[in-house]
Amino acid sequence: MAIDSQTILITGAGGWLGSLLPGKLVELEPETSFKFVLADIVEPKIPSSLKGTKSECITIKADLSDDSNMQALFTTKYGKPDVIYSMHGIMSLGSEENWDLGMRVNVDSTRALLEKARHQKTKQDKPITFIFTSSVATYGGQLPDEVLPSTSCTPEGAYGTEKLICEYYVTEYTRKGFVNGISIKLPTIVPRPGPPSRATSAFVSGIVREPLAGQEAICPIGSGLEDAILQQTGVWVAKPSTTLANFVKAKQLLSNTDLSKNILPWSRSVQLPGFTVSVHDIIQALRNVKGDDAVALIKFEHDETCKRIVSSWPRAFDNSYALSLGFIVDQDGFEGAIKEYRANHM
Amino acid sequence: MAIDSQTILITGAGGWLGSLLPGKLVELEPETSFKFVLADIVEPKIPSSLKGTKSECITIKADLSDDSNMQALFTTKYGKPDVIYSMHGIMSLGSEENWDLGMRVNVDSTRALLEKARHQKTKQDKPITFIFTSSVATYGGQLPDEVLPSTSCTPEGAYGTEKLICEYYVTEYTRKGFVNGISIKLPTIVPRPGPPSRATSAFVSGIVREPLAGQEAICPIGSGLEDAILQQTGVWVAKPSTTLANFVKAKQLLSNTDLSKNILPWSRSVQLPGFTVSVHDIIQALRNVKGDDAVALIKFEHDETCKRIVSSWPRAFDNSYALSLGFIVDQDGFEGAIKEYRANHM
Repeated sequence: MAIDSQTILITGAGGWLGSLLPGKLVELEPETSFKFVLADIVEPKIPSSLKGTKSECITIKADLSDDSNMQALFTTKYGKPDVIYSMHGIMSLGSEENWDLGMRVNVDSTRALLEKARHQKTKQDKPITFIFTSSVATYGGQLPDEVLPSTSCTPEGAYGTEKLICEYYVTEYTRKGFVNGISIKLPTIVPRPGPPSRATSAFVSGIVREPLAGQEAICPIGSGLEDAILQQTGVWVAKPSTTLANFVKAKQLLSNTDLSKNILPWSRSVQLPGFTVSVHDIIQALRNVKGDDAVALIKFEHDETCKRIVSSWPRAFDNSYALSLGFIVDQDGFEGAIKEYRANHM
Repeated sequence: MAIDSQTILITGAGGWLGSLLPGKLVELEPETSFKFVLADIVEPKIPSSLKGTKSECITIKADLSDDSNMQALFTTKYGKPDVIYSMHGIMSLGSEENWDLGMRVNVDSTRALLEKARHQKTKQDKPITFIFTSSVATYGGQLPDEVLPSTSCTPEGAYGTEKLICEYYVTEYTRKGFVNGISIKLPTIVPRPGPPSRATSAFVSGIVREPLAGQEAICPIGSGLEDAILQQTGVWVAKPSTTLANFVKAKQLLSNTDLSKNILPWSRSVQLPGFTVSVHDIIQALRNVKGDDAVALIKFEHDETCKRIVSSWPRAFDNSYALSLGFIVDQDGFEGAIKEYRANHM
């Protein structure tokens, strides 16, 4: 028997993680009766993971820069949302190339969504829970070896700046009691399925995904397997299932008065846990899972620009604050991530 | 003979510092031929300090949330501005009390001003120089004894949040080459003339200004002159003339290619230099300048809330970065500030 009922609004629900989130919520909270309002600029599909569950689902094509589109998300047959996952956005390369669109979608639409949430409390007349997805791109400049919650955010690109500005809005709207909000900064989620993207981090997935499928992949860092640079270049990653579980944990954290007291009172931003993996270790994990033949499919075309950008990213974070709030971290390293990808996508 | 001609737009030109800035620019750059466009929500007066100078001046009543009002600032008979001093804003207490107005004026109007500047280069087809006044209110949370440029900004109020969001816009618009911008974070400027304001920091000016005029003043910190709390409570201050000179320095810094190379590439925010003064030292400075009779006019009515707020402010900053960029710091302590006030206002 359902012990609870929740209406969940997800913006950007057509995206990779957005489309997986409803299934993860149902999986981790089987007692809850979910009603999903799934919105995106193109009407999202009903996630196959909801089939056979007791959850209900509406999909809506919505341009969040249009106020009547926005209003429609709050006036469905499910009524007001209890929880909003704000996951829409223009990605990093797109935000640089179409700067005005990035500002409009990543900042203005998020603020409009916060503003709409502010004026529409939950059925219990409480502030709506607002979970905003942010990014390690909010970091930049001179970083310590291990980034702490107290480390200053000085983004060096449009995407990071836009995400960071929204983080400050989420903190301020929460301080005022307008929403019950949190910003979760995502690590690089790997391996990512689908065709290679144009993001700088895309090779981290590509050098695993393509060889697993028997195809060649380009590694833009290093001149060959023995290049020391492969050990020196590290990326901060987490696997999809762990990250999705942390999306659920964020909701649970905000509904738990005792736990949410541990959130630093002057900031509602939390870096989700992850782990550092070097390019060398990624390739080694691929070898362990799939053998030498797979590794032989990786070709090296060193790209100094790509190397410089990857090296500027934060390499490691102190997970302890996030763990103290109940978030979880991968226990089986990059091999675990590869095995999960193989199980889900092959 | 004028060796240079500049059109300077000042928003918030009717405010205390805004009304003093034109005179300071003329004083420190006597060779420059200035054309001032002075804008505020109430039409500003022509500063008396411009009388007898070769500078020209237009005053405009402008609501910056109105696009046609905004446009008018860029299409005066003086043509496009070379430099914008963005000094308009709703102050801290006002931003808390009328939150929506604060967001609209402090964030939205500043972004609209940046956007307008972006699309209107200078006569030399260069990005417009954009000097944004920010505040120590952008700090909060857990602060080190001495705040560094690398210290994270975690504001705990609407005003600080609004100013900080604009700082990130200024950095981003500058990175994109849309403007040539800087955010200068002001210390508490003392003593401030005029009637007592409702700002928490108002007593820092009041316990000097009122006794100098032979009137009683309330000190909300401590129970009497011997209370140790007077030595423990410190404020980060600068006197008006030094701060105004730093407004001029900011403009010079941005026009000097060699000097502006020293600005940290990932941030366009600079904390202006100041010095720490305890309430005890303020009272001692008053005694040195005006004697025991003046000090006897200070009455003590300890207010725990005021004490708590003042104690939460950053007490000291490392000035070295700002000094390395050419900004200046007071050399004559709080006594110098009192003497300047007496010379200018009595």
